[in-house]
Amino acid sequence: MKRLDVIKIGGNVIDNEELLERFLDSLVSLPRPVVVIHGGGAIATKLSRKLGIEVKMVGGRRITDAPTLAIATMVYAGLINKRITAALQKRGVQAVGLSGADGDSVRAAKRKSEDIDWGYVGDVLPDGVNTAFIKGILESGATPVFCAISHDGNGSLLNTNADTMAREIASALSADFEVNLIYCFEKQGVLADPENDESFIPEIDREKYRELLDIGTIAGGMIPKMDNAFLALSHGVKKVLIKHADNITNNKHTVITL
Amino acid sequence: MKRLDVIKIGGNVIDNEELLERFLDSLVSLPRPVVVIHGGGAIATKLSRKLGIEVKMVGGRRITDAPTLAIATMVYAGLINKRITAALQKRGVQAVGLSGADGDSVRAAKRKSEDIDWGYVGDVLPDGVNTAFIKGILESGATPVFCAISHDGNGSLLNTNADTMAREIASALSADFEVNLIYCFEKQGVLADPENDESFIPEIDREKYRELLDIGTIAGGMIPKMDNAFLALSHGVKKVLIKHADNITNNKHTVITL
Repeated sequence: MKRLDVIKIGGNVIDNEELLERFLDSLVSLPRPVVVIHGGGAIATKLSRKLGIEVKMVGGRRITDAPTLAIATMVYAGLINKRITAALQKRGVQAVGLSGADGDSVRAAKRKSEDIDWGYVGDVLPDGVNTAFIKGILESGATPVFCAISHDGNGSLLNTNADTMAREIASALSADFEVNLIYCFEKQGVLADPENDESFIPEIDREKYRELLDIGTIAGGMIPKMDNAFLALSHGVKKVLIKHADNITNNKHTVITL
Repeated sequence: MKRLDVIKIGGNVIDNEELLERFLDSLVSLPRPVVVIHGGGAIATKLSRKLGIEVKMVGGRRITDAPTLAIATMVYAGLINKRITAALQKRGVQAVGLSGADGDSVRAAKRKSEDIDWGYVGDVLPDGVNTAFIKGILESGATPVFCAISHDGNGSLLNTNADTMAREIASALSADFEVNLIYCFEKQGVLADPENDESFIPEIDREKYRELLDIGTIAGGMIPKMDNAFLALSHGVKKVLIKHADNITNNKHTVITL
């Protein structure tokens, strides 16, 4: 099977213009096909504050009422998605910016929870990724660039976690490609010493993961990322890498293995 | 040649949720292929005001400084484009929301003017419409939905007049299709009596246009729309209609002919 890289860039990369430029420069040198998924960063929060809309977070996740969904759609699907697409076009990459509503590419269901009303937060449905549509774009030689907005097929857009959306797209495309899922952020991988960027742990399997959880090396926002990584591997993804966005072709990173 | 409808919906349709729904219901009954282009409406102006960004208009056209471009990108390419796309998906239309940066579909150059600095306003380049990309989407059975944001190929997004963008896309696709360009708005066509929606003039050719200009029946924002209509006809478009967005399949409208 043909190799495919599914690359997710996090919010801290989006917020750092210089790092984003280095990421995009580095992306150009990768062999195609590539799928990009981007997070949102602090721009949505800043815009909410400016507009006097309260930002409600629970466990690091955003509660998405209707005004917050409008802001997420404007910032993720509009501003960030089109800036990245235009920046890739400048570099000669035939990028196509998409949300999950476009081409019905990612369909989700509104999250149901007894404790919390998450609002317009969507979890990708089983078979919710329209691989035929995405493959059509890839076969035309283009590079899809997804923001983490999905839709429910009933007219509602939904805010979806970008790491999860990347994992769902990567898993779904594993039926047709040998997929590498690459989580790019502002560190060189999972660090043994958070103060030392060279202390990235080259490989983490389930056993090592449990150890690192126990001693507290892995904590906070890294936990859902690791869980996404293991889920991806158990759903057909060949390799998961966690690495710095400034150079996606070097061999400094954490490889996650089952 | 196969027929293709290129349908532009104006800002007053976008701003009227009920009218937009009727337009979308009506769109579903049209035979494919169809290309949709939408304007922006008052949402961008409202958002600018809320954010304390001055709105500068010259002759009904928006001067687009960097903060205004960011707002246009958020509102047109994000909020409106994805809402329309999700609403079409709900109706079973395989819509794909796009800006001119996506797939390099519409390339423009920053407008140069000795009198006014228009900022990030773009005029579509000769051969600026990537018909191969758009045809690929149409051939897959999908319906492209364009916002009026183009790009310069050098990393900049540009704000483009939606009527003009519709005309440029319609003209470019005339090499491969028999194109009808349909300008949909909140009236039944060019009205002889602005107070009577049933007074639409069924047909206007160049001679009639000059008469209507002389007596003041056609004035203001209708003038650039008429100019776009005649330009489209002289660049390969088969038919131009100006009609109400609430029913795009009836035969109440103004037909523009050379």
